[in-house]
Amino acid sequence: MRESVAPTSPKEVERHNVNLRLDRLGLLEKFRKVRTQTEAICKPLEIEDYVVQSMPDVSPTRWHLAHTSWFFETFVLKAADPAYVSIDAAYDFLFNSYYNLVGKRWSRPERGLLTRPTVKEIYAYRAYVNAALERLLGFVSEEAFLKVAPIIELGLNHEQQHQELILTDIKHVLSINPLHPQYTQSKPVGPVHVMPMGWRNMDEGLYEIGYGEDGFAFDNEQPVHRIYLDDFQIADRLTTCGEYLDFMSQGGYAHPEIWLSDGWNEVQTHGWNAPLYWDQHEDGTWWQTTLCGYRLVKHDEPVTHVSYYEAEAFAAWSGARLPREEEWEVAANKETISGSFLEAEHFHPIAASTNDARLMQLYGEVWQWTASNYLPYPGFKAPEGALGEYNGKFMSNQMVLRGASCVTPRSHARLTYRNFFPPYARWQFSGIRLAR
Amino acid sequence: MRESVAPTSPKEVERHNVNLRLDRLGLLEKFRKVRTQTEAICKPLEIEDYVVQSMPDVSPTRWHLAHTSWFFETFVLKAADPAYVSIDAAYDFLFNSYYNLVGKRWSRPERGLLTRPTVKEIYAYRAYVNAALERLLGFVSEEAFLKVAPIIELGLNHEQQHQELILTDIKHVLSINPLHPQYTQSKPVGPVHVMPMGWRNMDEGLYEIGYGEDGFAFDNEQPVHRIYLDDFQIADRLTTCGEYLDFMSQGGYAHPEIWLSDGWNEVQTHGWNAPLYWDQHEDGTWWQTTLCGYRLVKHDEPVTHVSYYEAEAFAAWSGARLPREEEWEVAANKETISGSFLEAEHFHPIAASTNDARLMQLYGEVWQWTASNYLPYPGFKAPEGALGEYNGKFMSNQMVLRGASCVTPRSHARLTYRNFFPPYARWQFSGIRLAR
Amino acid sequence: MRESVAPTSPKEVERHNVNLRLDRLGLLEKFRKVRTQTEAICKPLEIEDYVVQSMPDVSPTRWHLAHTSWFFETFVLKAADPAYVSIDAAYDFLFNSYYNLVGKRWSRPERGLLTRPTVKEIYAYRAYVNAALERLLGFVSEEAFLKVAPIIELGLNHEQQHQELILTDIKHVLSINPLHPQYTQSKPVGPVHVMPMGWRNMDEGLYEIGYGEDGFAFDNEQPVHRIYLDDFQIADRLTTCGEYLDFMSQGGYAHPEIWLSDGWNEVQTHGWNAPLYWDQHEDGTWWQTTLCGYRLVKHDEPVTHVSYYEAEAFAAWSGARLPREEEWEVAANKETISGSFLEAEHFHPIAASTNDARLMQLYGEVWQWTASNYLPYPGFKAPEGALGEYNGKFMSNQMVLRGASCVTPRSHARLTYRNFFPPYARWQFSGIRLAR
Amino acid sequence: MRESVAPTSPKEVERHNVNLRLDRLGLLEKFRKVRTQTEAICKPLEIEDYVVQSMPDVSPTRWHLAHTSWFFETFVLKAADPAYVSIDAAYDFLFNSYYNLVGKRWSRPERGLLTRPTVKEIYAYRAYVNAALERLLGFVSEEAFLKVAPIIELGLNHEQQHQELILTDIKHVLSINPLHPQYTQSKPVGPVHVMPMGWRNMDEGLYEIGYGEDGFAFDNEQPVHRIYLDDFQIADRLTTCGEYLDFMSQGGYAHPEIWLSDGWNEVQTHGWNAPLYWDQHEDGTWWQTTLCGYRLVKHDEPVTHVSYYEAEAFAAWSGARLPREEEWEVAANKETISGSFLEAEHFHPIAASTNDARLMQLYGEVWQWTASNYLPYPGFKAPEGALGEYNGKFMSNQMVLRGASCVTPRSHARLTYRNFFPPYARWQFSGIRLAR
Repeated sequence: MRESVAPTSPKEVERHNVNLRLDRLGLLEKFRKVRTQTEAICKPLEIEDYVVQSMPDVSPTRWHLAHTSWFFETFVLKAADPAYVSIDAAYDFLFNSYYNLVGKRWSRPERGLLTRPTVKEIYAYRAYVNAALERLLGFVSEEAFLKVAPIIELGLNHEQQHQELILTDIKHVLSINPLHPQYTQSKPVGPVHVMPMGWRNMDEGLYEIGYGEDGFAFDNEQPVHRIYLDDFQIADRLTTCGEYLDFMSQGGYAHPEIWLSDGWNEVQTHGWNAPLYWDQHEDGTWWQTTLCGYRLVKHDEPVTHVSYYEAEAFAAWSGARLPREEEWEVAANKETISGSFLEAEHFHPIAASTNDARLMQLYGEVWQWTASNYLPYPGFKAPEGALGEYNGKFMSNQMVLRGASCVTPRSHARLTYRNFFPPYARWQFSGIRLAR
Repeated sequence: MRESVAPTSPKEVERHNVNLRLDRLGLLEKFRKVRTQTEAICKPLEIEDYVVQSMPDVSPTRWHLAHTSWFFETFVLKAADPAYVSIDAAYDFLFNSYYNLVGKRWSRPERGLLTRPTVKEIYAYRAYVNAALERLLGFVSEEAFLKVAPIIELGLNHEQQHQELILTDIKHVLSINPLHPQYTQSKPVGPVHVMPMGWRNMDEGLYEIGYGEDGFAFDNEQPVHRIYLDDFQIADRLTTCGEYLDFMSQGGYAHPEIWLSDGWNEVQTHGWNAPLYWDQHEDGTWWQTTLCGYRLVKHDEPVTHVSYYEAEAFAAWSGARLPREEEWEVAANKETISGSFLEAEHFHPIAASTNDARLMQLYGEVWQWTASNYLPYPGFKAPEGALGEYNGKFMSNQMVLRGASCVTPRSHARLTYRNFFPPYARWQFSGIRLAR
Repeated sequence: MRESVAPTSPKEVERHNVNLRLDRLGLLEKFRKVRTQTEAICKPLEIEDYVVQSMPDVSPTRWHLAHTSWFFETFVLKAADPAYVSIDAAYDFLFNSYYNLVGKRWSRPERGLLTRPTVKEIYAYRAYVNAALERLLGFVSEEAFLKVAPIIELGLNHEQQHQELILTDIKHVLSINPLHPQYTQSKPVGPVHVMPMGWRNMDEGLYEIGYGEDGFAFDNEQPVHRIYLDDFQIADRLTTCGEYLDFMSQGGYAHPEIWLSDGWNEVQTHGWNAPLYWDQHEDGTWWQTTLCGYRLVKHDEPVTHVSYYEAEAFAAWSGARLPREEEWEVAANKETISGSFLEAEHFHPIAASTNDARLMQLYGEVWQWTASNYLPYPGFKAPEGALGEYNGKFMSNQMVLRGASCVTPRSHARLTYRNFFPPYARWQFSGIRLAR
Repeated sequence: MRESVAPTSPKEVERHNVNLRLDRLGLLEKFRKVRTQTEAICKPLEIEDYVVQSMPDVSPTRWHLAHTSWFFETFVLKAADPAYVSIDAAYDFLFNSYYNLVGKRWSRPERGLLTRPTVKEIYAYRAYVNAALERLLGFVSEEAFLKVAPIIELGLNHEQQHQELILTDIKHVLSINPLHPQYTQSKPVGPVHVMPMGWRNMDEGLYEIGYGEDGFAFDNEQPVHRIYLDDFQIADRLTTCGEYLDFMSQGGYAHPEIWLSDGWNEVQTHGWNAPLYWDQHEDGTWWQTTLCGYRLVKHDEPVTHVSYYEAEAFAAWSGARLPREEEWEVAANKETISGSFLEAEHFHPIAASTNDARLMQLYGEVWQWTASNYLPYPGFKAPEGALGEYNGKFMSNQMVLRGASCVTPRSHARLTYRNFFPPYARWQFSGIRLAR
């Protein structure tokens, strides 16, 4: 999932229309809420923090704020409001992320080289786009509204993805600073001792996966289709830091035979010996950078900021494996969506609280690497035009992650959600759930 | 498929035993035949040709000749013959390909920097290993033979893979030379006009795929397992150069919207505008380097030396897609294995001869990119020890290819064979079969 | 000259003492003036502008502001005031430029990745250091003052070098932004038509060069020594943009035979076809980024932002050559130091006003590349300790530039001054004076 | 000195004419001798050794053999014999080294990727060029001979440079092979204990340097010109391995303060801790690869295969410095040219035999790094046309070395000879003579 949201199928547009006809105000309210939440996330930042790109995968906060506005400007305002005048023609070039069909764009790894427009000017750009969109919702015909509403909804889901990215990116920006600046204060969490991990049995058989409901979903979650699964078991909670420390202390990073060849190459090239953001003090203790400060690694918390390669090697070392994405979805199918999301303001995964019959920690702590490459579902069709670039073109060299993390907005989580990142990526809140 | 062959499961070992007990001489004969064929392939080469590594993926011929001998030395002779003395202790370091558990090794991209042992010395090394192995087969006990025979068979399949690699690698070595040296003379092929491509219908349903027979197969083809397929259609022959030229002339390499994002990046980084080995003369004609010389592109021949990205973009442009590997296997299930293999000595794919009811050109022309990532089958288990490194550790960032090519030995082709290369690779005989 | 100032020889220390004994207040006044001027230069900047490092040679403004304070802290306050307490121990690591003997340091190409300390905190750091230094000057004994005063003077010259660097660096930062932000407004300059370039004759003979006066000079300008020169001629003014445009239009960047081999390699690698900051519009006109905005290239202005390679190729094309540094110094020996310096606030070189008998534009417009490598003078001795790293260790792979530029503080210019940069550097105000 | 020889000034051509008129046969004899010597040098090599380029600075032997023939073909045969027909038009592209004015050329770092023409074909090419040149010398008019003779002489000096390069390059090719192949057997050298190093005094004054005789010299040694020198001292012999080991054992490679900044950067980037070709065994002894095998470092031999940076750091550590090139030439001015050259067939520098009044080891052991950048002499003029590219265009980023080495042909050494390499180069026989 690199900065994206996908358009909706014709059938889905139809369904939406019914709801939207009734609810122009509802959409407006949702728009205000999401746009406001984005800015609320940036409150603790200094101006300097908005500017820096600490590695190519990271975008500066000022860019996120502008790009999410550019999305509404490009796909809604310019498309639906003939009188709309852009605040600055150059913004189209500066804030396009990857849409080839929209035009040329500023090089991604150089987003951190720009100082203008300033942060203040970007907030003004946001306000300008907000006002234009509110105006648009006021005057468009019913027919035009029905066309534009699904794209606005797409834009809001897109902006929620960037809310998560703002936090994962700013975490990286702050983490490289030897002064250990912190994003915010941590909230108190009671002491918890997690129970030993258990296994849930799942039966072989034909299942259906994919999104088939009335609401919003990305194109890559569709269509619903049948798959066959053998018997399997899935872990009832996430892998903890304590379990991962066992892996480390028993030579996890020193034995090539438990690693994929490409993973071992990463280990050696980058000198990986622990998850991202961890470092070991001379007394042997492990510390980690969190958004709420630099502190000791806690054994009961889920391990996070591991790559697919580390997740896969850990699973191999455990005598288990990672679940395929269809296994995850089938296992999670009857569970409710709960967990500590962005709104809980922990900004870090927390320990599983009790050991009940449910599959714990499916959502709201860390995204869970699956053993599945990110490929189109049978029958997948990307929409026409530039919005077709949202998801489909990234379907190579990436792995699917399922669930949701501690910085995902609650309303953004979904059973069928397919997040995706390259197997070497570690700066997202990515963790491990085992299968076998 | 990077330089490899995999050991056999316990059950398979059992099956082999029956045959092998009867047939120690049969194995010896097979051994002699494969080893001799490798050297026959090298006959047309000059000493200089054996030395060069024209890009990191290519290995020098002298390395292939030595490495395939090292395989028998390491996994058979040292394991089974306590009296075996290596011809030079340093060879272990020089000719290990990627087996971490065997020990350190000479860096792969620097294989072309070595001039010693000389080609003559390497042929002596081959003869030394051959003699030792023949001796071993003469004196080992029945019990020891049963242990060692499957590994010898693995070694022979391994050597056949390198027979193909010698030819694809030497093609690259010769191709970069402006003098257009050629490996050998071409054999006459009658003029053929291929018929328009047709589609074969396949029904939805539960199928079994994977290798479950008595003979040899790699670990990655196992175990047999069930999969569910929707209805699909598969092309009855390979995509031709003429069809690919249409794609090119209609802007195939100029329109980002038909490419995967990573593919478009390759196009721009490397300036791809045609398959590997093609170049355009000032009069507009397209020429290509073949093992039998530099000559015009022939419209009726299957297109080859395209990457997965190009295959995928061509399919998108055609309004079709690539088959998944299970679709390919199910479709090919009832077809006989025929085609022009290494032994036919064309060294280049030839046109489909007639349009009959069969699925044409499944084997013996070009490997066919599938839409499937190279991942373990459900229940896959790599063998213990260094031979477990043969296949399993490469299961990331690669795509599966099915079939066999014009430089695959005939006896090496198999319905369930899973070849694999990274999506950007173009120097293998890789081509396109469509599905939809 | 990369971020530096050099200590003084024992003899020079002696001379200083006489003056300093009389003038503790004079030094304090000078200190206040230089420190204030640095901050005045930053007035037009936005906070965002302080943060970015647009290429490895450029340092962020926030770093310059902190590093110049670190210099006083490290070499004066910590050395002379036992009660001095650093504002933050980590600053030593963050703001050391290249002094190995002082300790480890933050990697230079990553200076633009830091957001903290914030700009506000860095100004507080400056104020803290200023106060501590003022306090120090109040209480130190005469003896201690005599030791510390030359280092303070060195620190002030060091800071003046960084005043120039702040402006050349921020020019680069702003230049890469497609919005064409400008540092400040330009001041009016009357229209001028420069006269044709003339040649001044210099006689062969033995000369003395190097610094031998009582005032401040860097170690690399010393000692005075004799050199022998053949007859030569030197241009009476700088090369203009108009003359350089002739070079360009006659294929200057297309003919390898007028370039040094390394220079031609740069031309091809980077696609150079004009000075840095120039670009050509579709109507054929040449525009350039200046600190005072983006505007047409003016023919009568001195050409600037050329590398040594371009200066050398231009000279070869002209049938001339660049002067050796000793030729420049001998020719400039009797001229007064005048020109438009930093204080004139043009921030760009201006045209030669009239053609009189003097050598024009020696100082105050652009630094002038010489044909001399930056090497130690015969008898050169670097001082003991970390301050010995100021100049001497950079004496390889760099060329000497003479004169001073439009962003050099007036009091920093000197006949014997040896500026130095690698031959490929273009982001300084570097230009061309011919010899033959 | 990268693969080159320089044309002669008009005055020099004049001088030559007198000699050449008398001596057409003499030139022919010299031609035969040099051409034969090149091939004699290659006698010990295997075909495989001719092909490899072990690093970008190294050229394959097959390239050297062809390029030196190409030189005669291009600058003599094609220029003077209208009937001359090239053996293969593509050779012009393949074997041009760096002459832009001659046309395009095969990329230098890819010289090791070619396998054709084969070594046998290249020897045929040499014979073909030899025969054509002998024929030419037989039929050309006196007038044409006078034009062509200086270029032939240039070509012979050029070929002598490549004789040295063949040996330094093949040393590198063989050195990287863990089998320690050796070029030839070593000749016995009696045990010698060198005397402590002494200093020779030189007086300040005006001197003349540069080539002003009747014979052959490169353009870069001309014209003769005056320079002024202060008093200095120069070491009476080369620095030994024993002295260099002292430097190493006292932390020479661990103290940044004795290194140039660029040199320290090389030390850290490449992990330098000894001269090239040295490595330390577990028992603490130092071994080295020589052309005559892998063996212990001998304390009394001159140290070689050090870069300028190492020479400079060693000198600084010794409390001395390297001589400037004019100092070296003035000091060597009255000494005879003797030493162990290529013809002595030691292929490695040998110890100074006795301590007499002479300056020892000026020639025939190792090239001696000077403190001088490679710059044009005052009044230097490169010849017109492609031969003007021979020397002049390399006058940046290189240091001058003086003397001659153990693989320089005896007749190639000269008092005024200016060899040049980049300061980081170590694969030549480069060593250290101190001054102060």
